[in-house]
Amino acid sequence: MLFENKVVYSFGVDNPPVETIEAGETIIIEVKDIFNNQMSKTNQIEEINFDKTNPVTGPFYIHQALPQTMLKVNILHISLDDKGIGVVVEGLGVLGSKVHKSEVYRYSINGENTKMGNLAISLNPFLSIIGVAPRSSIKNIACAIPQSHGGKMDCPHVTEGATVYLPIFNKGGYLALGGLKARQGLGQLAGSGIECSGEIKIKVDVINSFYLNMPIVKKSGMISFLYSDQSLELAIERATNEVTSFLMDSFKISFNEAYHLTSVIGNLEIFQLVNPNITVGISFPERLFSDLGYF
Amino acid sequence: MLFENKVVYSFGVDNPPVETIEAGETIIIEVKDIFNNQMSKTNQIEEINFDKTNPVTGPFYIHQALPQTMLKVNILHISLDDKGIGVVVEGLGVLGSKVHKSEVYRYSINGENTKMGNLAISLNPFLSIIGVAPRSSIKNIACAIPQSHGGKMDCPHVTEGATVYLPIFNKGGYLALGGLKARQGLGQLAGSGIECSGEIKIKVDVINSFYLNMPIVKKSGMISFLYSDQSLELAIERATNEVTSFLMDSFKISFNEAYHLTSVIGNLEIFQLVNPNITVGISFPERLFSDLGYF
Repeated sequence: MLFENKVVYSFGVDNPPVETIEAGETIIIEVKDIFNNQMSKTNQIEEINFDKTNPVTGPFYIHQALPQTMLKVNILHISLDDKGIGVVVEGLGVLGSKVHKSEVYRYSINGENTKMGNLAISLNPFLSIIGVAPRSSIKNIACAIPQSHGGKMDCPHVTEGATVYLPIFNKGGYLALGGLKARQGLGQLAGSGIECSGEIKIKVDVINSFYLNMPIVKKSGMISFLYSDQSLELAIERATNEVTSFLMDSFKISFNEAYHLTSVIGNLEIFQLVNPNITVGISFPERLFSDLGYF
Repeated sequence: MLFENKVVYSFGVDNPPVETIEAGETIIIEVKDIFNNQMSKTNQIEEINFDKTNPVTGPFYIHQALPQTMLKVNILHISLDDKGIGVVVEGLGVLGSKVHKSEVYRYSINGENTKMGNLAISLNPFLSIIGVAPRSSIKNIACAIPQSHGGKMDCPHVTEGATVYLPIFNKGGYLALGGLKARQGLGQLAGSGIECSGEIKIKVDVINSFYLNMPIVKKSGMISFLYSDQSLELAIERATNEVTSFLMDSFKISFNEAYHLTSVIGNLEIFQLVNPNITVGISFPERLFSDLGYF
């Protein structure tokens, strides 16, 4: 069990590890909500210190983690605290210019559902922030900015039972995670989900069955390849490019064939379009890769 | 049973109806593939006449259809012919500039699966083109261009068992449909799915429980609101705007609350980004609307 105050606000080797763990180890981690619990005493979004938002617990130094291998993180259990917070903020999200006054919505989290007024909302607890230290030539990256090392990807597939694969850039990996949510839609159109604090149980491994310079999430028989970039168009184009290369290499097929597969089998998903980098995914049935022994 | 040669290449009241049907009626319709079966004799994409692609069967004049009501189309059965065609075309899709030579892929369709080389591909037969005549102030719209009247939306949710709701702009509706596919991923990144001819059975009704100026698809407990526009950003912003208004009206909630719901419960989906207008959807659990009696 690790204490709540062991949080950082960026991913990078400049953050001293809070703990060294062994590959194969299972750990339980407390995580704060994305507001760093600052909203517990106010409904005024303007009052919170944005330098202290999006905290992640860690980093964890994984003894066996070496560059050019993949970190494999099984999300074994997610337990949410009993309160959730959603916000609508002036300027935030695709209709931000139409928001005339920021507002805070407070949710009671209990079992598998919550409510907004009379409307029942089923929960899908997931981790919106997970990552490792970026390549050593890059200085620390703020948690809000998703890139190939992970970060705030807001991917609702990172639930209990999911597995996250992250490229390791530095010895020890420097895994850190946070940003629990009770629920968020694909795209996170208005810029917020139902944000929570809580506790997660993970198992960490290091594998070298394959290497890919992008985060991957395995969930319910689907494999999602994640890519974050400055615009939606760039993220989609580059994600398609990376995934096409990966399919060419994996299945020994031509560029045209692999590109065609992204169109016929691949599902483009938008995880969020409100962070400093936008995150998309291309998802395939896990079955497609079953002969390769990757996942 | 209607014959294959009763096809048109646009949506509009200028196309004389091939048949008048009654609300509540069930009909079986033959549809050609998007190449209008021109690829049966050639692998050279350059040889086909693009003015004669994306045919739709129809239009059907629905006796009870009146402007400002909704057409409800139940997709009761889809039967694919035994051949499917996929293409990769120079310039087409998000990596179109990297395609050096167009290629055609031929699939054998048999049961629930097909194959590309050694790779098994499960099928998800759906209708990529369905629509009505656009508002009477607009002249006919080519099938390739999706707008509020429907058209080539490439939404993979329009499968057997799905229900499509279309705003009626003209007396009689002028329903037409086509573009069967054996499978296509969300986004259709390379611009083609597995294109088929075949036969579909539909039931057509007219309802006035609600009115919305965008196509809606109900599938497997989800309700998807579809919007097509010139760019991905515009389509997403305007879809969110329309859906937010619809939620405000339906649930008597504020703009902020409705906008927040799109972020927490709504799933943004990209159906295709390769046609002259891009099509996105925002999807909600059908359960959310269960007290309203809309669907």
